[in-house]
Amino acid sequence: MNSFKEGWFTETGVLNSETTNLSIRVDQMIHSQKSKYQNILVFQSKLFGRCLVLDDAIQCTEKDEFSYQEMISFLPLNSHERPAKVLIIGGGDGGVVREVVKHPAVEEVIMCEIDEAVVDVSKRFLPFMSGAFDSPKLKLLFEDGYEFVKNHKNEFDVIITDSSDPKGPAECLFQEPYYRALYESLRSGGIICCQAESYWFDLAFIKQLYSKCKGIFKSVAYGSTLVPSYPSGQIGFLVCSKDKVVDFSDPIHKFSPKEYNSMNLRYYTSDIHTGAFRLPPFVQNELDSV
Amino acid sequence: MNSFKEGWFTETGVLNSETTNLSIRVDQMIHSQKSKYQNILVFQSKLFGRCLVLDDAIQCTEKDEFSYQEMISFLPLNSHERPAKVLIIGGGDGGVVREVVKHPAVEEVIMCEIDEAVVDVSKRFLPFMSGAFDSPKLKLLFEDGYEFVKNHKNEFDVIITDSSDPKGPAECLFQEPYYRALYESLRSGGIICCQAESYWFDLAFIKQLYSKCKGIFKSVAYGSTLVPSYPSGQIGFLVCSKDKVVDFSDPIHKFSPKEYNSMNLRYYTSDIHTGAFRLPPFVQNELDSV
Repeated sequence: MNSFKEGWFTETGVLNSETTNLSIRVDQMIHSQKSKYQNILVFQSKLFGRCLVLDDAIQCTEKDEFSYQEMISFLPLNSHERPAKVLIIGGGDGGVVREVVKHPAVEEVIMCEIDEAVVDVSKRFLPFMSGAFDSPKLKLLFEDGYEFVKNHKNEFDVIITDSSDPKGPAECLFQEPYYRALYESLRSGGIICCQAESYWFDLAFIKQLYSKCKGIFKSVAYGSTLVPSYPSGQIGFLVCSKDKVVDFSDPIHKFSPKEYNSMNLRYYTSDIHTGAFRLPPFVQNELDSV
Repeated sequence: MNSFKEGWFTETGVLNSETTNLSIRVDQMIHSQKSKYQNILVFQSKLFGRCLVLDDAIQCTEKDEFSYQEMISFLPLNSHERPAKVLIIGGGDGGVVREVVKHPAVEEVIMCEIDEAVVDVSKRFLPFMSGAFDSPKLKLLFEDGYEFVKNHKNEFDVIITDSSDPKGPAECLFQEPYYRALYESLRSGGIICCQAESYWFDLAFIKQLYSKCKGIFKSVAYGSTLVPSYPSGQIGFLVCSKDKVVDFSDPIHKFSPKEYNSMNLRYYTSDIHTGAFRLPPFVQNELDSV
């Protein structure tokens, strides 16, 4: 399948694109460029609103991005007693930092995005994503996140890896040395949260990741969220604690409905947080067998 | 988009097919026929296994059908104190009856499927779906479910409507007179459960349905499940009780892990049941405004 044909975008750049594809009707092409690292594309669609595509894989759409950004941010932040200093690896569209700076306990955020062009495109074409780039809490670096992590030990309370799929440049972010580097970069009590694919399409892969992390971290869990523009409509995160036993299904910080509204949370609640870790038996049994 | 092209099936028969489409790589065409009511198609694919398609809309695939069948069955059954007599409207593939007869409290199941050809196709080509057609608990009728309901008042503990989308023949199953007929067909304490589309793509429609049901039933809730071969990967059910206040998020019957295994449940657990009714604020706020 081609990615553009007769007014449709077909997602040919994802893990399972040989066997299934999502297509979205394109109303208007907004922007297209080739950066040093990847092809960047922005288009407008009726159902999903504005869409950001990197190397033929949808990264975020206006309709559903919040369920990803809120969950990758608040699952670890609300599982940590005092998440003062946060590192974000990737996340160039700005969605994760937009959520992270909302948290009242967060004082300082460092974000390492390798591709400055993604941030520029977000600022120009994705105003719903890029609102927190001028937050006084944020220090934004354009460098290799993996290298950064190796050089900063014992420093962060929470590290969030908002990566693309494990093919091409992001592949190293799904391997054991990277998780070991994250471990070293956490302070005592620290927690990581990494994009970890769909249990419908990538369960064997998740099981491998889970096994690697079990060998390094004290507590490990897979938390699930829904993103209809991603393959299968479901995606999850591996959440791991450095040296404390953590029940990730029971958040330490619980927000009231009033707080959800004032923080403009559209997907995340404390109940949704808990539910994210209640997995179907066909998934849980696989993880339990590790 | 065409439904078959260069070895791919593209789902052109669903509600949002003008704006988004799922495509599945076809390994082998298994069966194709035109029944009195619809086009019936079975094909084999690598990612989803065997797939049943009616009028260009995927009805079920081997990979993910269980999450739909288990949830549409056990959400109402486990919310009812003694679900002895159950009516299934539609469900010709056999998946719902396969789950319903597993429940220890269920004594008698009547199933009304209008299209005998779907049952035949399931028996011939979908052995993983059709195993309960010979259950001694089941009475299988090939007739119009809506007409049947009108003629059977005060009779059922649970009525499950496993319908296709509200376009074409199934449209009447999403309208107020049908819900009133279901209400009349329930015994005191009775509960209905109806397919009710995706909150990502059809929220305005769900809100309308919810409002109609609130005007008829005592308690009404929307419960969610995940089906990656359906549009958005998420679908839900309206669950309504005739004359008792029911907290659907707190099932009366709770199964132990041992029971899940012996019943071969792959998606449903009591925690998943509860989580199905914990909706994201962007959905809950809409329903609360009804």
